[in-house]
Amino acid sequence: MISIVLIGSGNVAQHLITAFLQSNEIELVQVFSRQKGSVSHLLSSDKIVSEYDEIKVADIYIIAVSDNAIADVSAKLAFENRLVVHTSGSMPMEILNNKNRRGVFYPLQTFTKNKAVNFKEIPICLEAEKENDFKIIKIVAETISTVVQSISSEQRKALHVAAVFVCNFVNHLYKIGNAICEENQLSFDLLKPLIQETAQKIIQLTPENAQTGPAKRNDTATINSHLNFLTYENQKAIYKLITKSIIDDGKKL
Amino acid sequence: MISIVLIGSGNVAQHLITAFLQSNEIELVQVFSRQKGSVSHLLSSDKIVSEYDEIKVADIYIIAVSDNAIADVSAKLAFENRLVVHTSGSMPMEILNNKNRRGVFYPLQTFTKNKAVNFKEIPICLEAEKENDFKIIKIVAETISTVVQSISSEQRKALHVAAVFVCNFVNHLYKIGNAICEENQLSFDLLKPLIQETAQKIIQLTPENAQTGPAKRNDTATINSHLNFLTYENQKAIYKLITKSIIDDGKKL
Repeated sequence: MISIVLIGSGNVAQHLITAFLQSNEIELVQVFSRQKGSVSHLLSSDKIVSEYDEIKVADIYIIAVSDNAIADVSAKLAFENRLVVHTSGSMPMEILNNKNRRGVFYPLQTFTKNKAVNFKEIPICLEAEKENDFKIIKIVAETISTVVQSISSEQRKALHVAAVFVCNFVNHLYKIGNAICEENQLSFDLLKPLIQETAQKIIQLTPENAQTGPAKRNDTATINSHLNFLTYENQKAIYKLITKSIIDDGKKL
Repeated sequence: MISIVLIGSGNVAQHLITAFLQSNEIELVQVFSRQKGSVSHLLSSDKIVSEYDEIKVADIYIIAVSDNAIADVSAKLAFENRLVVHTSGSMPMEILNNKNRRGVFYPLQTFTKNKAVNFKEIPICLEAEKENDFKIIKIVAETISTVVQSISSEQRKALHVAAVFVCNFVNHLYKIGNAICEENQLSFDLLKPLIQETAQKIIQLTPENAQTGPAKRNDTATINSHLNFLTYENQKAIYKLITKSIIDDGKKL
């Protein structure tokens, strides 16, 4: 049984709490949250604390707070030489205060409130200063996920940039598709099977082989007709730039 | 029983052939293909023709060829006053030669060779000059799909532009994610659960509510760190532009 104190109450924290509570090999000792109410639907109130001096002893302290608060929170912990990890994709391990043994426990997924996720399939990227600490967080990761990897801070940063492209930016393209539908009295539902199939395709095919459309065919008549159709500046600029990027990639072949 | 002659042998044509062959209410009379070999794995050779004067009588002629060949093919048909439709998202109905009764039968999906699709969920967008012809193509569409809609040429164009954003451009962002992984000795598989979840989320949430990430939070520290990380000009430009567009959208709220 590995004991954990979780610090934070946002999306990542809440999804981790849910996953840890379902595991028989993990004891969730406490959750530290400045606003107790934000996690009170997940666990009993005696396990929720909001003062640093109330934090109990545990094998691991997981800091799941916003990136710019990690350094501050890790400095405020009132103990030394214990194992403290953060869950951020973009922050180096060294952002954590060095009075404790440091590590990273980064679940690579987009977490949304009130939307359950299947943790078993979520890659968990691990890093630790000390080999023995790595072993401990690896055991924890493997109790909630089947995809556990050792990833350096530099690789994690690359992965986070890639994730911004394939998740945040992709979702913004969905938003543009939705906006175009709304302006033309079309239901966004019409695009949903296409969106699912586009995501499904790259499980079997490389994105290179899955590419279709006017830019891939260098079909300038359709491209120009689409550019004439678009009126919003950002939409037009995005259409031009990604079309150029697809055509440029084709030239490299 | 509605009889159909299908003209074309590309991705859309092949997927339609497969769907029609599975329907008990449709008789696929012939497939017209300049290269008989490209569809010979789908139906018997006596049903494949490559000369216009061999084309038999049918209730509907479906032209599933590349956009720039539709006008030419429809002009070469050696008959008049029959029902002829095309399957293009971007071409107006009027591109078809007016010696025949015209319509559009547009399945909104990304079709890839050797990758089966579930036609039942694919929206089919219909248009016809004459009300009676619309009824006929509606019957055909409903035998292969549960999502059948009347869509004007103008709306279809909007839908096609939206489809380019949510499919072709999204796939290009997957490609960039893949490239960043490869350059950092990371498996693209790590991003696949995130890609699937991002696509799944917008079934329940609007893209607006599903948006996460540094641009949404206006987290300039992370944005600048990512821009410093990126070296390829197109990747950097796409990162900048979509980030700007997400931030601009936020300002409108």
